[in-house]
Amino acid sequence: MHSWVDGQPADTVPLKDRGLAYGDGLFETIAVKAGQPVLLDRHLQRLDEGCRRLALTVDQALIRHELLAYAAALGDGVLKLILTRGDSLRGYGINPGAPARRILQGSPPATYPEAHGSSGVRLFPCATRLSEQPLLAGLKHLNRLEQVLARAEWQDADHAEGLMLDMSGRVIEGVFSNLFLVRDGQLLTADLSRCGVAGVMRAELLSRAEALGIVTTVADISLAQLQQADEVFVCNSVYGIWPVLGCGPMSWSAGPLTRKLQGIVRALLGV
Amino acid sequence: MHSWVDGQPADTVPLKDRGLAYGDGLFETIAVKAGQPVLLDRHLQRLDEGCRRLALTVDQALIRHELLAYAAALGDGVLKLILTRGDSLRGYGINPGAPARRILQGSPPATYPEAHGSSGVRLFPCATRLSEQPLLAGLKHLNRLEQVLARAEWQDADHAEGLMLDMSGRVIEGVFSNLFLVRDGQLLTADLSRCGVAGVMRAELLSRAEALGIVTTVADISLAQLQQADEVFVCNSVYGIWPVLGCGPMSWSAGPLTRKLQGIVRALLGV
Repeated sequence: MHSWVDGQPADTVPLKDRGLAYGDGLFETIAVKAGQPVLLDRHLQRLDEGCRRLALTVDQALIRHELLAYAAALGDGVLKLILTRGDSLRGYGINPGAPARRILQGSPPATYPEAHGSSGVRLFPCATRLSEQPLLAGLKHLNRLEQVLARAEWQDADHAEGLMLDMSGRVIEGVFSNLFLVRDGQLLTADLSRCGVAGVMRAELLSRAEALGIVTTVADISLAQLQQADEVFVCNSVYGIWPVLGCGPMSWSAGPLTRKLQGIVRALLGV
Repeated sequence: MHSWVDGQPADTVPLKDRGLAYGDGLFETIAVKAGQPVLLDRHLQRLDEGCRRLALTVDQALIRHELLAYAAALGDGVLKLILTRGDSLRGYGINPGAPARRILQGSPPATYPEAHGSSGVRLFPCATRLSEQPLLAGLKHLNRLEQVLARAEWQDADHAEGLMLDMSGRVIEGVFSNLFLVRDGQLLTADLSRCGVAGVMRAELLSRAEALGIVTTVADISLAQLQQADEVFVCNSVYGIWPVLGCGPMSWSAGPLTRKLQGIVRALLGV
């Protein structure tokens, strides 16, 4: 399906776009099922928070309208929205109030092996660490060189994802996923106030778990805590949940809480 | 003058470009004087180092050839080169060995007030800190949201540049400049192994100072050291050198070593 730029079919952006020049923008990767964007409100909520923190000017109602229209035309697949701060000739200075450029791109449904969800995956222990920047932490912004470097650390098919720590050695997330630990029936996921991407599926799972009466904690996580977990899983808004079987010398098995949450997420994503 | 993409006149890049998607690339901003790119070898050297560290595949001879041809046509102005990792459908994974996309953009000579160089400038004390990421430190990569946020902290014309510290409070650089201190006739500039951009003019000045027998040190710099400096100046490869008169409550005056180096740089830039 053709991409849209500011509501019009287009395949390119101007060379002056600040997304290209500085990674000055945000993105969302949204699962689309039967013409509907899944977890749309959560995606828009994160986008709104990002626009506020980066002082990007957008018409949220217009974005919602375009996402719904594009998803309806896409049917089933993945919708990527990029917002950039539009054009700039030279220099970092911004033009306050100038409307952000809206880019919508569609692609077919993701084609991860079914076994990732049913059997589980291994994580590559990435040497690339996440730098700590509270001003950008949590946002899905366009400055993603750390993820590019981390993902380039392994090429084998034995690792479906990578584990990323921060500069202080705390366990943060996957390269394109958030990470959850289960211990004594409770859920634990990393505090993302210094680095990391606050995933939409992570937010949904935290909310669902709370509603189910499962104790959930958002806090710093050490490698020792990871090692001692009863269950570990990764999640994102496209593939849902993958149980984690191992990472380097550590190993776990897919347990009951992971399977329970997988059931919920599968219903959500229609997979 | 028309921009070039991979050697052909063009004004756009595909939406799938990884520079847009992830800031996955590098750039150089090069002064052009009488058809010649100034400090070309140093720009190419930094670019080469960046390509090596980001595993970007480029034909250095081809880039040099294009830069020389573009500069000759531009005459006087500023040439911006962006290298991106080309196109990508979805995901952070790279296609090793795929040639980088080469983007050349020309613009007229910079129009900073002449007084910035002759009288000096004030620096805005930016609250935005530089995060520490040794894997990216020193490179002029496309992940520049920290600079965008820092530059957005002031709008008044009283501040020509901003001062950026790292997360630990060390004095690092300007938003679009490097910073030098003079103390007892010696030069000091920040160690950029954790964060910051290793500017081409900074490298040239370090080399020139050494040739002149001026003791130069690259090390961590505290705010106290900055405050106690005899002279302070900022530099980049487009405007050359600006003496720094103050930053917040701190003040300095343009001194003899700053003026001496300004003379060298002016000859180099032909200004």
